[in-house]
Amino acid sequence: MKGTMLYGPRDIRFEERPDPAITLPTDAILRVAAACVCGSDLWSYRGLNPIKQPSPMGHEYCGIVEEVGGAVTVVKPGQFVIGSFFASDNTCAHCRAGYQTACVQRELVSTAQAPRLRVPLADGTLVATPELPSGHMIPSLLTLSDVMGTGWFAAVAANVRPGATVAVVGDGAVGLLGVLAARRMGAARIVAMSRHAPRQKLAREFGATDIVSERGDEAVARIKDLTNGVGADSVLECVGTGEAMRQAIGSTRPGGSIGCVGVPHGVELDGRELFMTFVHLHGGPAPVRRFLPELINLVWSGAIHPGKVFDLTLPLAQVADAYKAMDERRAIKVLLQP
Amino acid sequence: MKGTMLYGPRDIRFEERPDPAITLPTDAILRVAAACVCGSDLWSYRGLNPIKQPSPMGHEYCGIVEEVGGAVTVVKPGQFVIGSFFASDNTCAHCRAGYQTACVQRELVSTAQAPRLRVPLADGTLVATPELPSGHMIPSLLTLSDVMGTGWFAAVAANVRPGATVAVVGDGAVGLLGVLAARRMGAARIVAMSRHAPRQKLAREFGATDIVSERGDEAVARIKDLTNGVGADSVLECVGTGEAMRQAIGSTRPGGSIGCVGVPHGVELDGRELFMTFVHLHGGPAPVRRFLPELINLVWSGAIHPGKVFDLTLPLAQVADAYKAMDERRAIKVLLQP
Repeated sequence: MKGTMLYGPRDIRFEERPDPAITLPTDAILRVAAACVCGSDLWSYRGLNPIKQPSPMGHEYCGIVEEVGGAVTVVKPGQFVIGSFFASDNTCAHCRAGYQTACVQRELVSTAQAPRLRVPLADGTLVATPELPSGHMIPSLLTLSDVMGTGWFAAVAANVRPGATVAVVGDGAVGLLGVLAARRMGAARIVAMSRHAPRQKLAREFGATDIVSERGDEAVARIKDLTNGVGADSVLECVGTGEAMRQAIGSTRPGGSIGCVGVPHGVELDGRELFMTFVHLHGGPAPVRRFLPELINLVWSGAIHPGKVFDLTLPLAQVADAYKAMDERRAIKVLLQP
Repeated sequence: MKGTMLYGPRDIRFEERPDPAITLPTDAILRVAAACVCGSDLWSYRGLNPIKQPSPMGHEYCGIVEEVGGAVTVVKPGQFVIGSFFASDNTCAHCRAGYQTACVQRELVSTAQAPRLRVPLADGTLVATPELPSGHMIPSLLTLSDVMGTGWFAAVAANVRPGATVAVVGDGAVGLLGVLAARRMGAARIVAMSRHAPRQKLAREFGATDIVSERGDEAVARIKDLTNGVGADSVLECVGTGEAMRQAIGSTRPGGSIGCVGVPHGVELDGRELFMTFVHLHGGPAPVRRFLPELINLVWSGAIHPGKVFDLTLPLAQVADAYKAMDERRAIKVLLQP
């Protein structure tokens, strides 16, 4: 089969790769129904994460189980399943505490931009839909593999409560779905920070009540203005830069909470500043496995439509164009059809 | 009257000072029943916080109200009261959220190592005991002004729950009272980190179930050993150095919580490390005003005896000896009698 490889900065190739096979009895092989490009893929694509050797790409996926190893007892061939970007056993102490991305056996899935995929620890990692989904539901189900689960975790980590005032730093797909998550959790006021009209529009569609297009100190001042000088109860940090983190800290009320899901790149935090601002800080690679059953139900029942975040669909063979469109911010998020 | 002044590193003087007087209608004047030296006073005493000019000292106090300003309606002359080291109005949005140390009108109390004391924002800051206390209760009531309230906040910020495993970094008075707080909140296992026999003894008396005398990576390894490799659910960071913070982060399980009450000195946090460890981080100058009613009840009913943390009592006139004893770690905490 052909799969996606990154050879160096902005050098994506769709090329011949070995067919995936069961290598451990806990594995499953999926036929991928849809995959996509993640904002975090762009760190490598842009050369900001060093690329030492040609690397397979893709960690967001859903599809049909084709084959399972001898130790797989829950997941069955023929099921439609969604899994996390980190495989996990779902039985260790960290998994049981809801931090499956800290699983003692965790393993990064990194070959999903391909027609077929090996998923380790299948019983712990994959969750099946009630039945085979219709095609229109697949984009929304695909988001649960990472981007929706990550936006959801941002809101959980930021302790979003009914009636709360929430600010979202970052208008990428994760930030936009963080807006959707905060809305679903009952936030009364949701401020999306964005200066791009199509993203502002989608933010409003997902539930944003206010848009702040300023950045840095000016953005913080606007949030303070909107909250009678108090600050937001909950802030979702969905970027991962030092500037975004400063903006998040400045926007949060004393005792408020910041949910951090942007993978930090060069972020240094001053201990005394954190101390003096009284913020709660929590985050990490989102344990999306924790949320899969609940989020599958919400998509299945039509309560949420996170698949709207895909504003471009391309055949998998054009994966290089998909990266380019996201790199140039021409697309929010690109769905890839095998 | 005479009061305590710091002139420079290790230069404490008990010298003639102006008598305190009502300067604003929201003030009260207290006759101090007992004061003490705080671990945070030692940062200045040791010259680690720069001393630009002779400074009055003391922010922990309890005593009898002698006089109140014209706008004070709740606090009455003759009452025995305890207040926080930060005066607060207890009515602004931050106060109502329980963060009185972020009060929009907050003002540091800094003249308490003296026989008489002006307290600003008296109605918001001071809480009266049910009746005049007997003398033996005064040390415990005094601790509620800062050190017990701070240890309590550390446990609250670290989300200590019934049945939890808790580690406490720091065997100063705050850390020891953090042990007491964790015990009171129902922690099943409390690991005190200390290498000093008298402090280990007091930690056990306050409820510690285990003592770890190692430091740094070795301490972290011991905590992991004690928790089947998982880490502690809640960690109280009661020091404020980078080393203590690293020890706290390393000791916490993924998804666990760190309550930070040691005032950070030179603490830099790596954003990616925090992210990858999944810790919850919260802290700040403890809003002890939030806890005063509850903690006064616990002391009054004899449920807790935090005054045990005072292992030396000196006349106020010997305040210089009190600083010296704490600086040399000959005393855990010194009570000063006016």
